[in-house]
Amino acid sequence: MTFSTILGFTAAVLTTGSFLPQAIKTIRTKDTQSISLFMYLLFSTGTLLWLLFGIFSNNMPIIVANAITLVFAVIILVYKIKYRKKD
Amino acid sequence: MTFSTILGFTAAVLTTGSFLPQAIKTIRTKDTQSISLFMYLLFSTGTLLWLLFGIFSNNMPIIVANAITLVFAVIILVYKIKYRKKD
Repeated sequence: MTFSTILGFTAAVLTTGSFLPQAIKTIRTKDTQSISLFMYLLFSTGTLLWLLFGIFSNNMPIIVANAITLVFAVIILVYKIKYRKKD
Repeated sequence: MTFSTILGFTAAVLTTGSFLPQAIKTIRTKDTQSISLFMYLLFSTGTLLWLLFGIFSNNMPIIVANAITLVFAVIILVYKIKYRKKD
């Protein structure tokens, strides 16, 4: 493995994994007040497109990373829609 | 441009751009209660590593996308640290 591959792999684990603590916090507290609905709409759509891009380019790391990220992002999005205060 | 390239480009614009509405909301409201500090610590570090990966692999789309995302992510992280309630 080259230095570049290790760097990219570590980066992918961090950016994908970062949504887990947010998903856990959101599920636990049901507090979504300061989370942007628009962010998670754009981000979930973008991650779905990354997943399709990975499938079309037959790129397994892109498929795996975005499939996992999509699960976390959609959980946060669903909680945001379900528990948002009218404001 | 192939279908795959358009898909990847659209995906990149959406996932990168998605952090802008969150950054705007956070700057405006200074409310970071429901945002996970751990998410933005991991995500900002991961995005920095993606940026370094892009520089090492001389990949301009990865450099540009992650440089922009890093700015938004660090803004949200700084606000989270500055305005978090002790809990």
